[in-house]
Amino acid sequence: MRSLLRIVESRTNVPLPPQPKMRIGVLASGNGSNFQELVDQVKAGQLPIKIATLIYNNPDAQVAARAAQAGITPVLLDHRQFTSREALDQAIVETLQTHKVELVVMAGWMRRVTEVLIHQFPDQILNIHPSLLPAFRGAKAIEQALDYGVKVAGCSVHLVRLEVDAGPIIAQAAVPVLEDDTYKTLAERIHQEEYKLLPQAVGWFAQGRVHIKGNRVAISE
Amino acid sequence: MRSLLRIVESRTNVPLPPQPKMRIGVLASGNGSNFQELVDQVKAGQLPIKIATLIYNNPDAQVAARAAQAGITPVLLDHRQFTSREALDQAIVETLQTHKVELVVMAGWMRRVTEVLIHQFPDQILNIHPSLLPAFRGAKAIEQALDYGVKVAGCSVHLVRLEVDAGPIIAQAAVPVLEDDTYKTLAERIHQEEYKLLPQAVGWFAQGRVHIKGNRVAISE
Repeated sequence: MRSLLRIVESRTNVPLPPQPKMRIGVLASGNGSNFQELVDQVKAGQLPIKIATLIYNNPDAQVAARAAQAGITPVLLDHRQFTSREALDQAIVETLQTHKVELVVMAGWMRRVTEVLIHQFPDQILNIHPSLLPAFRGAKAIEQALDYGVKVAGCSVHLVRLEVDAGPIIAQAAVPVLEDDTYKTLAERIHQEEYKLLPQAVGWFAQGRVHIKGNRVAISE
Repeated sequence: MRSLLRIVESRTNVPLPPQPKMRIGVLASGNGSNFQELVDQVKAGQLPIKIATLIYNNPDAQVAARAAQAGITPVLLDHRQFTSREALDQAIVETLQTHKVELVVMAGWMRRVTEVLIHQFPDQILNIHPSLLPAFRGAKAIEQALDYGVKVAGCSVHLVRLEVDAGPIIAQAAVPVLEDDTYKTLAERIHQEEYKLLPQAVGWFAQGRVHIKGNRVAISE
């Protein structure tokens, strides 16, 4: 028994071959500050992923320059060039598959998804939304929160379902609303939390720590 | 100018006569733990109000014994003894007026209000609700939050309108949802925040610091 134990012990001391990093595809429509945060954390060695591709749908989106700067060729799939949402999503699926993407991250992606994309990546598409869901779904969430007069706002990372902003919640962060907040000041405070929340959630997926049971999501140690 | 200034200064040094404390009427249907917290803070000199009356609608409610213990005669208005919601509210209005109530606090009041009550106390009725409104309005808010799988829950103090859980928000507190939370553990954590939030909001009203502008509520220094 003792010698067997020793063999097992010595085996566990053999360094494992480096695990392949999870391959991420990012979809973005605009400025790309959340994309930038992922890039920066990967570069700093804080996030064990490989950003395999960046897809954008708006030729003017600043995110394209950020991707190029990071050495990731940006892929433009202009929704106006497709005859339907499904056709756009089919092109997205093909691009993601070409790059062997395992997890899709919507970081300010302003297009509604269809079954075409969701079917190919079940429980593998994340979105970040600037509210504490289920409050203030849809567009202009921060404006909605200010108009409603809430005292606590925030942001959510969730799995994408056909219904907009409605999938299981992976992580949320609360942000206080201050009395003199404008859209600009509140949005800035929420974005600062997004920059922490999204990489954290992506990291949990990369480490295989996310467990989905119906609507409730558990993160293992 | 100097002598005038001195007069003004000396005037401000004259002690003001003690201000009459704002008279509060509490409506409760159950255990009354939020009522108890108000009682305790008044007793400790931390809350400059006078609890003028406690109205309850359920003969079995433990809040009645808490009121009696605190030297406040509990007033039972059993909704089953009234022919309509409006008739119940009319009796509530009369009780509140008899006790010269200036601010109504619903602390676990499980009856829908009507125009009869709201009309008599415009912007003078507070409710505490165990969610971050506008999420999870109505009954069983904590169960709704657990079922949805949110990672941040909380509680809200708001002004009462005809629509359930829909008035301007005075104060909110966020509460983390933990992975192994049950109804019991999450409710306990939310209640601890309620015990701070409701007296704080009542104190702001008593000090005249609440300013309502449409949906947004500002608290002055």
